[in-house]
Amino acid sequence: MTTHRFTATQHPSLFGGHEPVLTIEPGDTIITDTIDAYGMDKEGRQVATGDNPLTGPFAVRGAEPGDVLIVDLVRLTPSRATGRGEASLVAGVVDPSFIRELPPRVPATWRIDTVERTATLAEPATNLDITVPLRPMLGCLGVAPRHDQRIWSGTSGPHGGNMDFRGLTAGATVYLPVFVPGALLYLGDGHAAQSAGEIGGSGIETSMEVEVRVDRRKDLPIAWPRGKDAEWIWTIGNARPLEQAIQHATTEMLRCLQSEYALDLPSACMLLSVAAEYEVGNVCNPAFSVACKLPRSSLSNQIVQTIP
Amino acid sequence: MTTHRFTATQHPSLFGGHEPVLTIEPGDTIITDTIDAYGMDKEGRQVATGDNPLTGPFAVRGAEPGDVLIVDLVRLTPSRATGRGEASLVAGVVDPSFIRELPPRVPATWRIDTVERTATLAEPATNLDITVPLRPMLGCLGVAPRHDQRIWSGTSGPHGGNMDFRGLTAGATVYLPVFVPGALLYLGDGHAAQSAGEIGGSGIETSMEVEVRVDRRKDLPIAWPRGKDAEWIWTIGNARPLEQAIQHATTEMLRCLQSEYALDLPSACMLLSVAAEYEVGNVCNPAFSVACKLPRSSLSNQIVQTIP
Amino acid sequence: MTTHRFTATQHPSLFGGHEPVLTIEPGDTIITDTIDAYGMDKEGRQVATGDNPLTGPFAVRGAEPGDVLIVDLVRLTPSRATGRGEASLVAGVVDPSFIRELPPRVPATWRIDTVERTATLAEPATNLDITVPLRPMLGCLGVAPRHDQRIWSGTSGPHGGNMDFRGLTAGATVYLPVFVPGALLYLGDGHAAQSAGEIGGSGIETSMEVEVRVDRRKDLPIAWPRGKDAEWIWTIGNARPLEQAIQHATTEMLRCLQSEYALDLPSACMLLSVAAEYEVGNVCNPAFSVACKLPRSSLSNQIVQTIP
Amino acid sequence: MTTHRFTATQHPSLFGGHEPVLTIEPGDTIITDTIDAYGMDKEGRQVATGDNPLTGPFAVRGAEPGDVLIVDLVRLTPSRATGRGEASLVAGVVDPSFIRELPPRVPATWRIDTVERTATLAEPATNLDITVPLRPMLGCLGVAPRHDQRIWSGTSGPHGGNMDFRGLTAGATVYLPVFVPGALLYLGDGHAAQSAGEIGGSGIETSMEVEVRVDRRKDLPIAWPRGKDAEWIWTIGNARPLEQAIQHATTEMLRCLQSEYALDLPSACMLLSVAAEYEVGNVCNPAFSVACKLPRSSLSNQIVQTIP
Repeated sequence: MTTHRFTATQHPSLFGGHEPVLTIEPGDTIITDTIDAYGMDKEGRQVATGDNPLTGPFAVRGAEPGDVLIVDLVRLTPSRATGRGEASLVAGVVDPSFIRELPPRVPATWRIDTVERTATLAEPATNLDITVPLRPMLGCLGVAPRHDQRIWSGTSGPHGGNMDFRGLTAGATVYLPVFVPGALLYLGDGHAAQSAGEIGGSGIETSMEVEVRVDRRKDLPIAWPRGKDAEWIWTIGNARPLEQAIQHATTEMLRCLQSEYALDLPSACMLLSVAAEYEVGNVCNPAFSVACKLPRSSLSNQIVQTIP
Repeated sequence: MTTHRFTATQHPSLFGGHEPVLTIEPGDTIITDTIDAYGMDKEGRQVATGDNPLTGPFAVRGAEPGDVLIVDLVRLTPSRATGRGEASLVAGVVDPSFIRELPPRVPATWRIDTVERTATLAEPATNLDITVPLRPMLGCLGVAPRHDQRIWSGTSGPHGGNMDFRGLTAGATVYLPVFVPGALLYLGDGHAAQSAGEIGGSGIETSMEVEVRVDRRKDLPIAWPRGKDAEWIWTIGNARPLEQAIQHATTEMLRCLQSEYALDLPSACMLLSVAAEYEVGNVCNPAFSVACKLPRSSLSNQIVQTIP
Repeated sequence: MTTHRFTATQHPSLFGGHEPVLTIEPGDTIITDTIDAYGMDKEGRQVATGDNPLTGPFAVRGAEPGDVLIVDLVRLTPSRATGRGEASLVAGVVDPSFIRELPPRVPATWRIDTVERTATLAEPATNLDITVPLRPMLGCLGVAPRHDQRIWSGTSGPHGGNMDFRGLTAGATVYLPVFVPGALLYLGDGHAAQSAGEIGGSGIETSMEVEVRVDRRKDLPIAWPRGKDAEWIWTIGNARPLEQAIQHATTEMLRCLQSEYALDLPSACMLLSVAAEYEVGNVCNPAFSVACKLPRSSLSNQIVQTIP
Repeated sequence: MTTHRFTATQHPSLFGGHEPVLTIEPGDTIITDTIDAYGMDKEGRQVATGDNPLTGPFAVRGAEPGDVLIVDLVRLTPSRATGRGEASLVAGVVDPSFIRELPPRVPATWRIDTVERTATLAEPATNLDITVPLRPMLGCLGVAPRHDQRIWSGTSGPHGGNMDFRGLTAGATVYLPVFVPGALLYLGDGHAAQSAGEIGGSGIETSMEVEVRVDRRKDLPIAWPRGKDAEWIWTIGNARPLEQAIQHATTEMLRCLQSEYALDLPSACMLLSVAAEYEVGNVCNPAFSVACKLPRSSLSNQIVQTIP
């Protein structure tokens, strides 16, 4: 159970196709940094170009295609006092007839206060004071994709990727399908805060200090990213349109309830029909992301009952 | 400020085209009953056929096209110890390749306990005990539509209708656009609880005792239903696909922030880009419903600052 | 087999809810006029307001819910030397990022030459001569909808409506489901020519002289409009998004091949998988329209073989 | 202007990431074979695994990112007497409620007659004789994608790929954007015939003899595949949902009319609004494909007028 401190010297913008920068044992912990989506590090230096430059990939010894990678997001802390974003909304989330009225997409700057745990808009000037609570998250988390593909860090798929789901925050455990030996874990695109849907086209983009504990599991085939935190379990579908992302996420949740919680399919359907929620990760990237969420409270009595 | 107790003797399944069953003054309160989506009343009697049979319409004196109807949902209480639903999920929320595996759509029965505030699945038998907290809500709330249309109570639009949004619960205030003189308010389709998206194709359908206070406002043009409760303000878009529902809801929220909260458009966009959330009302009816939600906490300082 | 010459004095903008302006026997012919989508008649007079003002409804004696109405479009002739339209494209058919570049939606005027059978753009001035062949068609054709609804003439559904399908032209036979006694046939919104998809938001809108022969059939339940001409048979789905319109149209075609051409379902699937085509009616109205088309040539040997 | 005869010994299932198997000069011709989508060659031998195994990539000397690759499909001939397919329709093209009724997806075999130019279903047995005209086409045509990605041959994008557009047939000229030095052209997935939309999930899959002439052009930036044949010019959008594919294709057509035909944007919009058509390439792959088509006849007088 080693803890590795890793400093990146390169930042790929693809999931897949790279030699691992570090190989760890299952159960090890990695402490590292991510740079922001525009390539700026914690010192404010431009250290990479491209979109969503990533940290990694990290290989996990013994992980094989068909396994599941388990990533505990132990700690996630903005490492810079400023965040950057866009001062408008993406065209796709307003009525087509309203698009001409949208403000121009000029850059926005935010002040990040990790003591008060707030982010405050610094510029452009607006006619109100905009301050929101910090909700640090990773926009990008994923592994090398299947079919030996190399997929751009601007989009997502069964391998994870640029999902921009606010649930990818400290305290969450994420499950990812493994498609290549070693799994090859990449992470990046930290946001100090973000709306659901990332409807500005960016969050409050900033560098992060990240601590993750990484393990693998052999007996749990999954098709899409899954996860849990103190309150919820969730499954993620990445696709366009949103309806298809919902289909992937809901189907994966049914499979999850069957394989991990010993529910039969009719019970899983009944439970979802009264307790499921959906959270939009992003509606701005090439693939949209939706999480199907279930309160852990709705499952507690079931587990007692069904697993001897 | 009269309080009217109204007992329905007919239950239309259309929004629009009926003589008012009661005409009230702005600010009056109505206490009435709704029957369940299958036409069964609080005594368990089948008193109507058709889909989502409604209570109403109620006319508000002086309401004119272009006005806004304001509906305070003062109280909403299940009035029967049983609820009914479906024991499966709708085909549209799972992968097309998974549809063949879905359980058959047999009826489900739930026991409603208004003291413990829970609903418990009575049948069909499942391999777990499914109990969820009560979250009473109205699936249908709306007015007579524009263009003199008569629209089926199974779907929704700018007039409201069968939105199946869990925010339509006691404590919420709903704003609806007025298209005909008197507005003609209809309500029905109460659910004891429901997943987001109403992905079972029904909630826990039951009869309700409803108390609403109804007012009108002349100076606030709106295009889509809006609302608020203790924690959130929200706007609703009703359309297919979900992307279009999101577009309607987000555009309406931008207009709401401008007209009701004195934000300029760039400020409204910046605020939404870091604080907006989306809640899926339904993804099972002919028109899907999505609420764009903003925490009231994100607006408090703004209002102080911007409205003298 | 009477031929009725009918002159309209009113032009409703709803499908459903009107007393018939004329009641005919099955097999009778109606010769009448339609006015253009903006309410202008063949003399260039504004005789109606609203969107897509219609001619009708015509009742067919003995038509009952569950029957099929059969409409032969015998003749369809532009009755005015000018057509009107829009000088841009609708926002929904270009990339959201391109919408700001679209030209303004100013009116366009076209000269219609029924001898040369061409339409030529008169204004606004462009840097080229735009002349296209005449392809007269009816944008609106439909009956009173189910559930006793009244549905705006700007949209479409199982009842037909504003489908803007170029196949609704002279020589075509259209089948419509009957939802109310007498069926109540409405027609209007003639176009001298139109792109597939009606992507300008209008066609070349003009008044028409129309001759239709109307019959009914008792033994052929249909769910969506169907039709045929010399070359094709087709079924229409009206919905958003296009995927859903395709689903409705394809499913209806499968049912059509089974009930009208005696194919079993596997044969119908195999035939569609190699011979079906899709034509976009409109991608600009609230409900999109898609026709699933099959060449009659692909069916000729089958019919001989399967129907004794 | 050399003619190269090339025999493939490997068949990648990715666009991008391979060393060229042959480097040609601009203007050269390649005569080669493609194997079918299941990996079977013209002798009926299984020579590759994976989906849509391709022939190539071919590098074109001097082609640079930003250039356009021009591919003349000179000849395309089925090279085997049998084709293979699926005996059902994909789930996504019928109503969700109808999916359970679809026949099972068993293999189908077709006899290909290149003299009569027909394909006839051999098995499974159906209750009719299904014979369709040969329409040989390439399901896959594309180049190495941008961002140094490697993209699976089951899907498509700006680089082309598995578009399954029936216009990719002998006599067509296709334009593809170049993203890497040499362009790297791949081709495969020949169909003897196919419905629009490839709604069976496959066409009549067979091996092909292909003759292509390949050139490059420096001064014509394009964003999506374009093409032309004797009757049409067209642009292709590859995306989900269909609406987005239509947006890409229509926007690209507007750019094409401006840059290649000297129309100003208002003229291009007016012309499309009365003359554009859409053809669905596929609605079964991860990205759908739609061609925006314009009759060459609608452009002839314009070119005379606008280009001196």
